[in-house]
Amino acid sequence: MLILLTNDDGIRAPGIAAALRVLRRLGEVVVVAPETVQSATGHGITLHGPLRTWGVRVDDQTVGTSVEGRPADCVKLAVNALLPRRPDLVVSGINAGANVGINVIYSGTVAAAIEAAFLGLPAVAWSLLLDQTLPDFDHAAELCLESLQRLMKRGIRGGEVWSVNVPAIRAPERPSGFVAARQCTRPWDDTFEKRIDPRGGAYYWNTAKFKLHEQDDDTDVAKLRDGYVTATPLQFDLTDRRLMGIAAGEL
Amino acid sequence: MLILLTNDDGIRAPGIAAALRVLRRLGEVVVVAPETVQSATGHGITLHGPLRTWGVRVDDQTVGTSVEGRPADCVKLAVNALLPRRPDLVVSGINAGANVGINVIYSGTVAAAIEAAFLGLPAVAWSLLLDQTLPDFDHAAELCLESLQRLMKRGIRGGEVWSVNVPAIRAPERPSGFVAARQCTRPWDDTFEKRIDPRGGAYYWNTAKFKLHEQDDDTDVAKLRDGYVTATPLQFDLTDRRLMGIAAGEL
Repeated sequence: MLILLTNDDGIRAPGIAAALRVLRRLGEVVVVAPETVQSATGHGITLHGPLRTWGVRVDDQTVGTSVEGRPADCVKLAVNALLPRRPDLVVSGINAGANVGINVIYSGTVAAAIEAAFLGLPAVAWSLLLDQTLPDFDHAAELCLESLQRLMKRGIRGGEVWSVNVPAIRAPERPSGFVAARQCTRPWDDTFEKRIDPRGGAYYWNTAKFKLHEQDDDTDVAKLRDGYVTATPLQFDLTDRRLMGIAAGEL
Repeated sequence: MLILLTNDDGIRAPGIAAALRVLRRLGEVVVVAPETVQSATGHGITLHGPLRTWGVRVDDQTVGTSVEGRPADCVKLAVNALLPRRPDLVVSGINAGANVGINVIYSGTVAAAIEAAFLGLPAVAWSLLLDQTLPDFDHAAELCLESLQRLMKRGIRGGEVWSVNVPAIRAPERPSGFVAARQCTRPWDDTFEKRIDPRGGAYYWNTAKFKLHEQDDDTDVAKLRDGYVTATPLQFDLTDRRLMGIAAGEL
């Protein structure tokens, strides 16, 4: 089994090394990941500049390729130019921070997995909820692997994307369970703080904090809040079928 | 009517000025757009740095606000901190280049409109297909306005996003018609060209070209190829309902 591993926190992030350690049990893992942190870059790609690459040691067994680009660039470049053959699976993560609810849309981690699915590959995105203490990526990686094995048992096909989120627990704590959950679509409570620089220019900080609010109980946000490992199947056909049905034909 | 106008080509792009000219006929237009070109940045947002702002003259009647950030940042900032009240409509564009098919996912123009819909506002993204000759943004703006008036006649509600694409025609040419069309989900044919720099380092250029290939006839790609102004309703709930149905409950 050939696995492509990428992320959005950059090739030197602890989450990708933890993912590498558990994925090795399933087969050969090739790491192609951004050279720099790409959090919240969404599904950007690089068309008007070149993608520079470097060999970077990820751990004592693996030298990966870092790419001066976005997570989705890494997947495109790896699949079309770097890998010896099409991978059997693409994994993106482990992201430092949950990608549930509307954050799915902002997430570079999820974008990399969606890019893989465009290309007809089976893909998973792995993200770890953070709290105020040091994250346990090794424990999260074990839980991600367990979720992957459950998905593989039911079958994960080319073009499918599953976004997996792990609660902020530490070994030997167990999650409340493993559940499939739909994406919550409530917006953030956006807030901005205005400041004036020493020369009189204005600037703003986005001060919104993502919170696991009370939400409908069947959503990824609610299930993660309640200590579950969640898996949300995602699509890249953005057509709103309900509106499409109303509008079909002549506008 | 208060209209927020943004884009991803930057506040100085000709497309946004053309959009401004036609939108003025509907009401008051406030322009808040990126300071720099943000093409293919997808749905990125800025959390770890400040959003610097400037006043920029868009035309002889309007001074807009430029934001050192992404298109989605502009919408968040405008709605939550800059506008006197919630806008009645958010328009993003006119983008220099079509946003049909899978490009919808990469597009900053579309991301801005989707961000507005998150926030519960009605939103449209406007994009113009380019060919080898100089684009006629003024003519495109008239057609965009016509599509908007058709959408408004049937009613466009808060939370709805319509991505409109205009064929590469020039005044006084008319489009083949105005149609609602679903998003085509075929991937690009990605190709990369490897080069070696003078010091021996490797870099790659993404050499994929977006073409209006033969596609299923009911898609945005096919309809735009055939000279129609297309309108595609988009959603931001990425949950794959078919897989969700299979997977419901315990993973």
